[in-house]
Amino acid sequence: MTLAARYLSARTLDTAPALSASPGPGEVELAPAYVGICGTDLHIFHGDMDARVHTPAVLGHEMAGRVVRVGAGVEGCRPGDAVTVMPLRWDDTCPACQAGHQHICQHLDFIGIDSPGAMQQRWTVPAAALVHIPDYVPLERAALIEPTAVAVHDVRRAGVRHGERVVVVGGGPVGILIALVSRDAGADVRVVELSAHRRALSAELGLTTWDPAADDVSKLLHEWTGDAGADVAFEVSGAAGGVDTAVDVLGVRGRLCLVAIHPRPREVNLHRFFWRELTLVGARLYDRADFERAVVLVADGTIPADRLISKIVPLTEASAAFEALEAGGDVMKILVDCTDNAQGADA
Amino acid sequence: MTLAARYLSARTLDTAPALSASPGPGEVELAPAYVGICGTDLHIFHGDMDARVHTPAVLGHEMAGRVVRVGAGVEGCRPGDAVTVMPLRWDDTCPACQAGHQHICQHLDFIGIDSPGAMQQRWTVPAAALVHIPDYVPLERAALIEPTAVAVHDVRRAGVRHGERVVVVGGGPVGILIALVSRDAGADVRVVELSAHRRALSAELGLTTWDPAADDVSKLLHEWTGDAGADVAFEVSGAAGGVDTAVDVLGVRGRLCLVAIHPRPREVNLHRFFWRELTLVGARLYDRADFERAVVLVADGTIPADRLISKIVPLTEASAAFEALEAGGDVMKILVDCTDNAQGADA
Repeated sequence: MTLAARYLSARTLDTAPALSASPGPGEVELAPAYVGICGTDLHIFHGDMDARVHTPAVLGHEMAGRVVRVGAGVEGCRPGDAVTVMPLRWDDTCPACQAGHQHICQHLDFIGIDSPGAMQQRWTVPAAALVHIPDYVPLERAALIEPTAVAVHDVRRAGVRHGERVVVVGGGPVGILIALVSRDAGADVRVVELSAHRRALSAELGLTTWDPAADDVSKLLHEWTGDAGADVAFEVSGAAGGVDTAVDVLGVRGRLCLVAIHPRPREVNLHRFFWRELTLVGARLYDRADFERAVVLVADGTIPADRLISKIVPLTEASAAFEALEAGGDVMKILVDCTDNAQGADA
Repeated sequence: MTLAARYLSARTLDTAPALSASPGPGEVELAPAYVGICGTDLHIFHGDMDARVHTPAVLGHEMAGRVVRVGAGVEGCRPGDAVTVMPLRWDDTCPACQAGHQHICQHLDFIGIDSPGAMQQRWTVPAAALVHIPDYVPLERAALIEPTAVAVHDVRRAGVRHGERVVVVGGGPVGILIALVSRDAGADVRVVELSAHRRALSAELGLTTWDPAADDVSKLLHEWTGDAGADVAFEVSGAAGGVDTAVDVLGVRGRLCLVAIHPRPREVNLHRFFWRELTLVGARLYDRADFERAVVLVADGTIPADRLISKIVPLTEASAAFEALEAGGDVMKILVDCTDNAQGADA
């Protein structure tokens, strides 16, 4: 029997048999191996997105696994292939798609939120969503390709150039990935993060960190940039104070890339946007070029994915993993192991 | 005797002798003819900028006039030339200047705020600040070149392209100028404005207007753009509701150009910036290319400057003009006439 972890209602996951069926034309059935838990999954677990999510819902959109069966008309993919999934299905007819922005389709089906996700042992997806992974990349590392694609997209939206000074506000998984991708682009990077654990991990990866609770950020900024201020800031904290910090650190014509989700309106110092001719750029998801670049960055070790994985838990213990993440604490990325040999007595 | 209107303290202007002195090397003495009163001048008149303005202060930075005397080393300019002034003096050494953004120099001297302005009958300025005007352009119309340069800069910052749909929130002088410059760039424009007088004037200029108090803006937007939304919005109202409207009307990847001054932080729907990948662009002042383009647009009648001038008052009545503007009412642009023959019995 194959299993699926299912979200039922706020703070409640169960495990049930996964539905396995022959993939239809243009579809592929996968065996997910590792699935990351992301911030949006946590929002769903909190019950914040019950209006959007149809229960029981199989979550999960950060994954790596292998092809099991291939539907009619699918080319370029065989059983056993190592793959990840770009979990977007767009309608190709809305104004966003017509303008070439399919990833923010106005009727986007985000696979893993709007339709069943990867936290199961068999998963059928459109073949068009597959992205192949080189065979030598361990699948647990490849599960970080999707959040890396987010970071690649964000850095591209912000237009980070060689030699620029970049401040990343919020050093969780996406923040650290943005810092690493920015560094790879030639930027000089600072990560602003409250958690000592996350600062320590950032430091191990060679990133310079600031503690906004203990450090005098404006003094450090001045020592670093003189009167110029930073060229780019990424708001990845989701906090009101994070927005303020991201605006405050920017120099003339600085660009603030908004990555975090702020469900409620935030007070923003618009005067500074006027005075310094700042730019705010919203960034959401990724396109295929971002995803393919993320495969390269994880495969060549630019993204030390293994260092970001705090813990791997079996699918049958997914619920406990969500609770641990919800409680905060000293974790970065937690993966759910969907392979057969991980499920212990329950398998 | 030549006169100057001087700001003394909140809501108090007087008239005093203007100081006339031989222009130094690199300087030019002008005889301002017409000087517009702008929103920033009103802020000063309210007393809101007393921390920045050194009293007694001669205000005024929207002007046209003629050269009277030319200092040593000044070339390309003779007594009698019709000119306007780009009222910026930068230090050329700060990070903004070094990056090529002199107009937002971090130690900018804005002539007319930080140093004496044009509301006087003799005015000495750096020759580098002069912009020549074709002789056939009436000087009262030429007084609108400076605010037109603001609009040119804003439209350029927003990157308005032919065929795009543009919403201008706030139909005061700068808002209407932005609408006209956008239309000249080939955009389809809507002006959102509460004042019936300003809507009527916009309509006379061939602009389509929406009344946010009476019209269903989202319905009108849908009739106009379908599900797409607008490509560009300009926030020129300075109001909290204006920010909301400007964000709400934008489609995927829409650009919001922030023109108005918001002294206090505003609540902004950041989620929509994320969800639709919107961009917010701050825009301040202009550079020389914007100014020279503004000369052309006023000279060739693209900007019907005479239609925007509600009233011309003598210099000795400047105080009453500020009071009229402060009281609101049915006015657009008020000019102060600094010519000798305007001053009546006081001259």
